[in-house]
Amino acid sequence: MKKDLGIALVSGGMDSVVAAAIALRKMPLAFLHVTYGQRTAAREQRSFHASADFYEIEQRKVVSLDFLREFGGSSLLDESLSVPDVSELKSDSVPTTYVPFRNTLLLSVAVAWAETLDAKTIVIGAVEEDSAGYPDCRREYFEAFNRLTQIGIRPESEITILTPVIDMSKSEIVRRGTELGAPFELTWSCYRETDKACGRCDSCVRRLRAFKEAGIPDPIEYES
Amino acid sequence: MKKDLGIALVSGGMDSVVAAAIALRKMPLAFLHVTYGQRTAAREQRSFHASADFYEIEQRKVVSLDFLREFGGSSLLDESLSVPDVSELKSDSVPTTYVPFRNTLLLSVAVAWAETLDAKTIVIGAVEEDSAGYPDCRREYFEAFNRLTQIGIRPESEITILTPVIDMSKSEIVRRGTELGAPFELTWSCYRETDKACGRCDSCVRRLRAFKEAGIPDPIEYES
Repeated sequence: MKKDLGIALVSGGMDSVVAAAIALRKMPLAFLHVTYGQRTAAREQRSFHASADFYEIEQRKVVSLDFLREFGGSSLLDESLSVPDVSELKSDSVPTTYVPFRNTLLLSVAVAWAETLDAKTIVIGAVEEDSAGYPDCRREYFEAFNRLTQIGIRPESEITILTPVIDMSKSEIVRRGTELGAPFELTWSCYRETDKACGRCDSCVRRLRAFKEAGIPDPIEYES
Repeated sequence: MKKDLGIALVSGGMDSVVAAAIALRKMPLAFLHVTYGQRTAAREQRSFHASADFYEIEQRKVVSLDFLREFGGSSLLDESLSVPDVSELKSDSVPTTYVPFRNTLLLSVAVAWAETLDAKTIVIGAVEEDSAGYPDCRREYFEAFNRLTQIGIRPESEITILTPVIDMSKSEIVRRGTELGAPFELTWSCYRETDKACGRCDSCVRRLRAFKEAGIPDPIEYES
């Protein structure tokens, strides 16, 4: 029996690539990448295509939501704000790198594509516990999105959001990805730079810590 | 006290303009228009700007989700499918004019803008009873979207979706809009044409019936 197609949202970061690697063991995937005017968009897109090539994904799409840059409201989008060093983050508030309602937009694009492709599953590499405090990375959020999807699509369509790494720590993601042979060398996590990773933004620090905890060397280059 | 800003999703059709007219009595509004590659996009955009001019709206934005045309899956988007005459519609299925997950995308764009503008309300002119059977026009759908929004935005943000015409029949919308002096002459409803309305697609037929039932002449021109 032919297995139903899924769609993986692949940013080009390590979480989404490992989430896709996990899902690929169970279903064929199309890869979807969404740009939203973020600083490192071109670099992330390169990682997306490299990962899709690695997994020999035939159906892939890049969609632009670059109008989000015009909205602003995030240090990932607005060049007049700086991406904070991890030491500048407050633990009790949503960081300035939060992009308003981003995951809902990403998932909605994926659901729209899934309905036309007759795909049954959307795979997203969100991480709850070890994430940066983004409201739209929590399990509760994805449950609400799944409910909305069941109500908002054609009654004969069936689409479920899958979050295979949501309960993992970043170091577990490194270990699981390594077991599965995920191409970490092709992924990009840095919020600031596009040549060598800065090593100091929140995203770099979390990545470096995860590889260190897992006892596995991070194969990408960092500014010294 | 300065009243909190709302954002009205204004397609340029009669329902959204009347919904905005109702909301404007209670709050100042920014107008948001989303194109998605539909056949009549340019004509609808003209109606959007004309309505925004009529209400002297300063903050207005047009956002493109034209990638939806590439996804296809709707007769509003795909030129190889024809927009059905109302007589060709089956009453028990979602019509081919349904655009996959469109309202979720529209609302998500609005929420993202609202979070950056600090707007508290999103106004959408969806109509449940007298709509064409779209799953994402039902009250239940908007309740699920409101729950998702509460969970998915910053905890300090407060945004509610308002559907001021959802329980009205189309003829009630005509009557209420007439009372409020809404500019029906500037609105556009036809799914097919962009010069004179066709008078035969589902959207035209519902509009014509509504004006007839309300005993009010429809001020736009139709093909004879």
